[in-house]
Amino acid sequence: MNDKCNAPIGIFDSGVGGLTVAREIMRNLPNEDLVYFGDTARVPYGSKSKNTILKYSRQIIRFLQTQHVKAIVVACNTASAYALEDIKKEIDLPIIGVIKPGARVACQTTRNGKIGVIATEATIRSGIYKQFINGQNPDYQVLGKACPLFVPLVEEGWQKDPVTITVAARYLEELIKQEIDTLILGCTHYPLLRSTIQNIVGEEITLVNPAYETALELKSLLNKYNLNNQNRATEHQQQRFYVSDLAENFQKVANSILPSEVDMTNQINIEEY
Amino acid sequence: MNDKCNAPIGIFDSGVGGLTVAREIMRNLPNEDLVYFGDTARVPYGSKSKNTILKYSRQIIRFLQTQHVKAIVVACNTASAYALEDIKKEIDLPIIGVIKPGARVACQTTRNGKIGVIATEATIRSGIYKQFINGQNPDYQVLGKACPLFVPLVEEGWQKDPVTITVAARYLEELIKQEIDTLILGCTHYPLLRSTIQNIVGEEITLVNPAYETALELKSLLNKYNLNNQNRATEHQQQRFYVSDLAENFQKVANSILPSEVDMTNQINIEEY
Repeated sequence: MNDKCNAPIGIFDSGVGGLTVAREIMRNLPNEDLVYFGDTARVPYGSKSKNTILKYSRQIIRFLQTQHVKAIVVACNTASAYALEDIKKEIDLPIIGVIKPGARVACQTTRNGKIGVIATEATIRSGIYKQFINGQNPDYQVLGKACPLFVPLVEEGWQKDPVTITVAARYLEELIKQEIDTLILGCTHYPLLRSTIQNIVGEEITLVNPAYETALELKSLLNKYNLNNQNRATEHQQQRFYVSDLAENFQKVANSILPSEVDMTNQINIEEY
Repeated sequence: MNDKCNAPIGIFDSGVGGLTVAREIMRNLPNEDLVYFGDTARVPYGSKSKNTILKYSRQIIRFLQTQHVKAIVVACNTASAYALEDIKKEIDLPIIGVIKPGARVACQTTRNGKIGVIATEATIRSGIYKQFINGQNPDYQVLGKACPLFVPLVEEGWQKDPVTITVAARYLEELIKQEIDTLILGCTHYPLLRSTIQNIVGEEITLVNPAYETALELKSLLNKYNLNNQNRATEHQQQRFYVSDLAENFQKVANSILPSEVDMTNQINIEEY
């Protein structure tokens, strides 16, 4: 075991959505410490260009490196789609995104080879889910649908509201008609709409939550590099939260999503990195 | 007349919303040239903090100064609420926002002294409409309501959709019950929902569009400083558009909002200013 094992995992997202990934990592890797960064000053990424998302991701990676993380999880579908491949070549740390794990499990789940993906406009536009899924099986059909109202509806707290049900039914209509049997929740906010979406698509369609699959992939990755924290200095998992704006608002949402209370959220100037 | 008269007007917003203000300026000041900046890489401002909005606004002002503008219009309610007063002290150019003109006309319009304001969370949180209105008449009641779904609904193109009507009815219910007789559309996207909103509130409630009032205020301001462009070098109004991301998407929306076609939109790195 080397010194690095005690170092934290770095996780980042454009805002609060990646907390659904942090939550799964906390549950499934209880020995690991975390440093989370949410880019709340520049959220959302889902309507922005590749170059902008890449620039923002590089700044965040530089910040996480100052926190001496041992591995990085890109807990944002849009950044995973546009920035991960470039960043992988630029840094000397194990790094994973949320797309590959979700795509792999969808391939294992489908019986009829028709997989739906719901995500932000930028993620759908990137075609990356299709690319990964067809990399595993070129015969699989991948049907994407951008759902730009889902994030603001979740942020309004209307997860089970009739308005959200109407909007979701409209967004999902075409995918259901095309007879998908597997649906990837391709944006980190969407697991918060899980039961609403499941009610609309029915039990015949299996929902894939990339957040959970990403936590399992991180576990394998730490094993592979022999980076597990087996020798905890403190009894409890340590978590540090950083944002680029409105720390207080972030903390409120974090406390509603995470299994344990967030003590403090720090604000930093991300443009300096 | 001095040399400055031929210089363009600088207009900025967090994204495309300010185009409703640019549209009114084009219509009402047809002799003036325009430079418009939309901060599409960091949109929206409505959920961000004062410090962040002030920092972004300062960068944009510095950019507009490199374009030798003769006056600046802050065509964004959130930036007008949080940044205008500070910026006014820092620059040596006539500068106006969209809030004061809207507030003034609302005061002239109301008969029962009950004025509603719909806007982003940040604008409502700032309390600035109340401040301006009560500055004119301390007896007026100002009732604010944040409508965070309106911008994404407009951007989805669902201006007259049953979903938008349901959401709008819910947002406006309380204001109608409180018997407002005047309603300020306190976000530059909202004039695009004008007929939907008017149908819900009924003809008894007068809608105030600050975009139009701002164009008239700009006209007075140019007169006051003797800055009118009375000696046009070219026949047509010149307009230049700059954004911080996705110029092509911006241009599509601009062409749907503005009276004349946008030839080209330029992308710049706003963080460098």
